[in-house]
Amino acid sequence: MTKRYLMTPGPTPVPEDIMLNMAHPIVHHRTKEFKDIFAETKKLAQQVFQTKNEIVIFSSSGTGAMEASVSNLLSEGDKALTVAAGKFGERWSQLVRAFGASAVELKYDYGDYAKIEDVDKALSKDSSIKAVFMQASETSTGVFHPIDEIGKMIKEKYPDVVFVVDGITAIGAIDVKTDEWNIDIMITGSQKALMLPPGLSLMSVSEKAKRVIENSKNRYYYFDILKELNSDGGSYTPAVTLIEGLNLAFKKILDEGLDNVFRRHELLANATREAALALGLELFAKRPANSLTAIAMPVDSSKVISLMKDYGVHVSNGQGSLKGKIIRIAHLGYFGKPDIIMAIGGLEIALKKLGVDAPFGEGVKKAMEIFVEE
Amino acid sequence: MTKRYLMTPGPTPVPEDIMLNMAHPIVHHRTKEFKDIFAETKKLAQQVFQTKNEIVIFSSSGTGAMEASVSNLLSEGDKALTVAAGKFGERWSQLVRAFGASAVELKYDYGDYAKIEDVDKALSKDSSIKAVFMQASETSTGVFHPIDEIGKMIKEKYPDVVFVVDGITAIGAIDVKTDEWNIDIMITGSQKALMLPPGLSLMSVSEKAKRVIENSKNRYYYFDILKELNSDGGSYTPAVTLIEGLNLAFKKILDEGLDNVFRRHELLANATREAALALGLELFAKRPANSLTAIAMPVDSSKVISLMKDYGVHVSNGQGSLKGKIIRIAHLGYFGKPDIIMAIGGLEIALKKLGVDAPFGEGVKKAMEIFVEE
Repeated sequence: MTKRYLMTPGPTPVPEDIMLNMAHPIVHHRTKEFKDIFAETKKLAQQVFQTKNEIVIFSSSGTGAMEASVSNLLSEGDKALTVAAGKFGERWSQLVRAFGASAVELKYDYGDYAKIEDVDKALSKDSSIKAVFMQASETSTGVFHPIDEIGKMIKEKYPDVVFVVDGITAIGAIDVKTDEWNIDIMITGSQKALMLPPGLSLMSVSEKAKRVIENSKNRYYYFDILKELNSDGGSYTPAVTLIEGLNLAFKKILDEGLDNVFRRHELLANATREAALALGLELFAKRPANSLTAIAMPVDSSKVISLMKDYGVHVSNGQGSLKGKIIRIAHLGYFGKPDIIMAIGGLEIALKKLGVDAPFGEGVKKAMEIFVEE
Repeated sequence: MTKRYLMTPGPTPVPEDIMLNMAHPIVHHRTKEFKDIFAETKKLAQQVFQTKNEIVIFSSSGTGAMEASVSNLLSEGDKALTVAAGKFGERWSQLVRAFGASAVELKYDYGDYAKIEDVDKALSKDSSIKAVFMQASETSTGVFHPIDEIGKMIKEKYPDVVFVVDGITAIGAIDVKTDEWNIDIMITGSQKALMLPPGLSLMSVSEKAKRVIENSKNRYYYFDILKELNSDGGSYTPAVTLIEGLNLAFKKILDEGLDNVFRRHELLANATREAALALGLELFAKRPANSLTAIAMPVDSSKVISLMKDYGVHVSNGQGSLKGKIIRIAHLGYFGKPDIIMAIGGLEIALKKLGVDAPFGEGVKKAMEIFVEE
């Protein structure tokens, strides 16, 4: 028997009651019953997104909603600022170019975070920039960007610029205030802190974003934001089982209470980070997100991950040039304190087997201490 | 208690064992375990599609794969022939125009089917037509187009033209021979005869289609056929639970045997059609598909559907201008003989309550006779 523990930053574990609920008989998407669930789910999403803006749900991975924001906002030849400090930041530039617009790139080293003054400078230098695309947390490096400050600065100094944030590993894990921080389009996916299987992407759309979309022209059909906003049950057959699961997941999050959810994620993140430091390891992210922790490895991280897998815990490697250099432990969504203890335990066992000089037992001890003191 | 029977042409009922299987713990999409399932599922898809061509699976509704075929094959200014005899045929024209190409439309009345000579004439008149887009069965009218003859004619007379078929309510229900009939891109969705919840679209891609895609240029990112063909686990996080379900569904179909599956659908379709005729009703489709039966109603079909729903059976109305005129009874996927008897029973009860002069009991009797004689 292999009992496995999934601690990857998406897909993440799905609560057992949600899984079983999704196994109930299929409801047709054009019934009042489903339309009511769909409408209620969007209302619940607004609470979790902390927004009054309308919500769109696509049947796609999170990249689908990223694409929708780019293709719907930008016309051919438009200019957009893309902020990249990792693989998902770079995806914004690829998307902008794929849709015939040009990307002004603000690039940082992997592990670093965006600085408000750099964004300000880039926008002040080019008044033709129509939108800013960036991540809340960069899943490839575990960094959380200061989107609060950046959003407020954009609102104050560049009120016509549309601010688009990929919150795929933030929404439902980290306290991101969509409206208060002036985020015109906030994006997430089902398979992260929303505790569902992959297959849905979500976005909130401000009135300002809607006006810009109305005046833009590009090539799209399936990912049509305004069409979806005007549809009461989805323009095409929606992924009905996943939406029913999403409805339950939002209720679970709101039952726990958003503040409690964020505090739980903060606690788990803090314990993971402190445990890593207690082992003499370095955190890879200069401004770590509470949804996942990237830890630099003194040996080939692929070996660490492989040994942790033998033990039963599945964590992620770095992507691209970070492969072999870091491990990424996720704690977003359906996670509790025991998950952190067992993950750090696995990390310590792997490091010991690889002959790394780390104070054996100190990682787990540190995490336990934090949970005692809480 | 309301026990409901779903007889709509998508979503369709999902076998209970597949539903429960999809409730098992989430598998990460970058594991060997998932990649093996993904690769095997594509191989199984080839058998069901009756093709040697490679398969692409997107997390999206069926429209996503339709869009992919248009945006990947056509460059701006290209010309395509779209064949439309219903709502889904018209979607092809919308898609072609949305991606900057022009659609030469071959239009038929709703209920009618495409004629080989019309397609031939349209292609002979304009040698710049790069691709033909049409349905196998038009879900909005229940028509099955002669794609076998059309495919063979295109191959013989217009070997450079790419032939794209939306087989969303055909694959897994009707004997469509993708390769033998020269279908370069064959498309389907998960929520039809493949007996799954909505959320996946599939397509087979011929070598010829790949060459045309390589030489085309348009705006797309998520729906990138060549990128998916080169990815062993999907370019973005795939809908892992649905793909595991798809794997089981294909095995179920192949265990029954493709020929038996097609014969079962033919039998159920035949019984439904003959029952309608025995009631003095008219079939709406001039060339009916074996996946669903559209029946013209002598009274407002919305009233018939509402009464059938009270009885427990959920069938579909016409779409657009056909609303109130027809009912559509689906028998594609997880359906057996009892489903037809209960659906016709519901239809008869509804007609009786509405005072329609139809020989009460003769519909069910006719269907039963057909099952006795079988």
